[in-house]
Amino acid sequence: MKARGALALVLLAVLALVVASTPGLAADSLPSWNDGAAKTSIVEFVSKVTREDSPDFVPVAERIATFDNDGTLWVEQPIYAQFAFAFDRVKALAPQHPEWQNEEPFASLLKGDFKSAFAGGETAVVKIMMSTHAGMTTEEFEQIVTDWIASAKHPKTGRLYTEMVYQPMIEVLEYLRANGFKTYVVTGGGIEFMRPWAERVYGIPPEQIVGSSIKTKYELRDGKPVLVRLPEIEFIDDGPGKPAGINSHIGRRPIAAFGNSDGDLEMLQWTTAGSGARLALIVHHTDAAREWSYDRASYIGRLDKALGEAQAKGWTVVDMKRDWKVIFPFEEE
Amino acid sequence: MKARGALALVLLAVLALVVASTPGLAADSLPSWNDGAAKTSIVEFVSKVTREDSPDFVPVAERIATFDNDGTLWVEQPIYAQFAFAFDRVKALAPQHPEWQNEEPFASLLKGDFKSAFAGGETAVVKIMMSTHAGMTTEEFEQIVTDWIASAKHPKTGRLYTEMVYQPMIEVLEYLRANGFKTYVVTGGGIEFMRPWAERVYGIPPEQIVGSSIKTKYELRDGKPVLVRLPEIEFIDDGPGKPAGINSHIGRRPIAAFGNSDGDLEMLQWTTAGSGARLALIVHHTDAAREWSYDRASYIGRLDKALGEAQAKGWTVVDMKRDWKVIFPFEEE
Repeated sequence: MKARGALALVLLAVLALVVASTPGLAADSLPSWNDGAAKTSIVEFVSKVTREDSPDFVPVAERIATFDNDGTLWVEQPIYAQFAFAFDRVKALAPQHPEWQNEEPFASLLKGDFKSAFAGGETAVVKIMMSTHAGMTTEEFEQIVTDWIASAKHPKTGRLYTEMVYQPMIEVLEYLRANGFKTYVVTGGGIEFMRPWAERVYGIPPEQIVGSSIKTKYELRDGKPVLVRLPEIEFIDDGPGKPAGINSHIGRRPIAAFGNSDGDLEMLQWTTAGSGARLALIVHHTDAAREWSYDRASYIGRLDKALGEAQAKGWTVVDMKRDWKVIFPFEEE
Repeated sequence: MKARGALALVLLAVLALVVASTPGLAADSLPSWNDGAAKTSIVEFVSKVTREDSPDFVPVAERIATFDNDGTLWVEQPIYAQFAFAFDRVKALAPQHPEWQNEEPFASLLKGDFKSAFAGGETAVVKIMMSTHAGMTTEEFEQIVTDWIASAKHPKTGRLYTEMVYQPMIEVLEYLRANGFKTYVVTGGGIEFMRPWAERVYGIPPEQIVGSSIKTKYELRDGKPVLVRLPEIEFIDDGPGKPAGINSHIGRRPIAAFGNSDGDLEMLQWTTAGSGARLALIVHHTDAAREWSYDRASYIGRLDKALGEAQAKGWTVVDMKRDWKVIFPFEEE
């Protein structure tokens, strides 16, 4: 009877694994989500593409999910974290650049006069970004970002930026990965700005970050190879750039995409234009008390055209105030 | 006794798994390699970075291996396969381009006069590549490549190009993956030229192909989103471009890199400049009978500077004639 006893045990173990990996039967994988249409649409989509008997079944290798970062995975108000980083770098570098005292946008920025600093529009932004993001090796830049992210505080809450992530979205990332998905960040922000911390904070490794980039140049310095960051834009991973970035880095069309602004519209269009079951989800910032409330009129993270298209096409729109029990992980403390 | 019987069975199963996954104990993972320094360097490297008690142990997430394609994984003589593809496309498209009869490099190419066609140097090459690789959507191009690779024959052997791959290198790819490595192609060739078939032939998925690229433009055509391939170079993933491409797509430094020409030198330098155990391997084409014999003087796949550096730094140099029992999978038939 030994063999039959062993068989029974093995079968029990297999059954336990099946139960644990079946979405409907498992303990709630999205505990920070209130029951409602948004949560249901996520769970039903995952069930549809992972059940082997489903007409919408998708093999593991093709389970690609892409997430915008600013405003989708973490806070983007009152300014993008990467802008705060750039401003801190301008301050840190100012002693080496006495000419900045009389040169815009630096002069205004150093006086804390953001309005004048950005009167120059995109040119001003590019000047600030290039002066703070280029001129060092990739390893040096990684260290600068690592040091900054470990200490810089969000101006409203005084929390680390990496604490200002959305707990319900962290649960979606984990839930998808538990169901065989490969999760990617597809951000308008800098690819090298995210890589040093995205694995620790989101569980997303460097090779699964797609983002904007500047050119690099290979050099030997004292016989040691380095990549030097050049003050030249290589790729802007925003709006129509997102499908191009996805194509370049992933080479497969996602079956699920998550965004929060018009900069994500083309990624959502591209994702939903594939055949079979698709999930397009927009995080709508509706909670002025716990986070921010903004959409069509906002300068940061404007959600206008994509909100209209979401409504017309039946995409999932998350109402942060109504759908999320908590916004940030620290609320659970 | 039931529980103890089950336990014994489980222990046996675990033992079987351990034996199967231990390099030294497993059946030979590199059966097409003759015993010698090259094979030993590969096996010893893998053992060093995967044994948990080794001072050179590398966590699975950081086991990145990058492979050049042309001349490293498949044949590059007498011309790169992608050039053969481009010439076939010029012929196929010629009826739609009557002007090519009087326009170089097309006129010479259509007459089969390669020497005159390439008298124009890089400009001629770019003209041919852009006229054959741009102007369609990414999906259309994927289909064109898929159709071509399914039928185009190598001019010397009459075999499909995908049969002209190096069996010993296929074994290295599989051996590394069995030991927790993520294997990447890092090719001077087109990223979109390789993706349609690399998974089937090499077991390498689209998101693990790094290569040269042209720009794409997102458009809605009758409401359907497409990416249109533009006749503009985006990135040349060759020579110093390889570390830049690795940084852009992978964001981690490989611990092992495989190449065959001077175009791989910077990738090998970049890989070996990291700390801990590193493997840099060069496939030296020394077998005029079974494949080709070429190095310092060759127009295609010149191996000159990198051969000198390999010798100076003690990198692994594979002597195809001596080290490989078979070159191509079909030799085993």
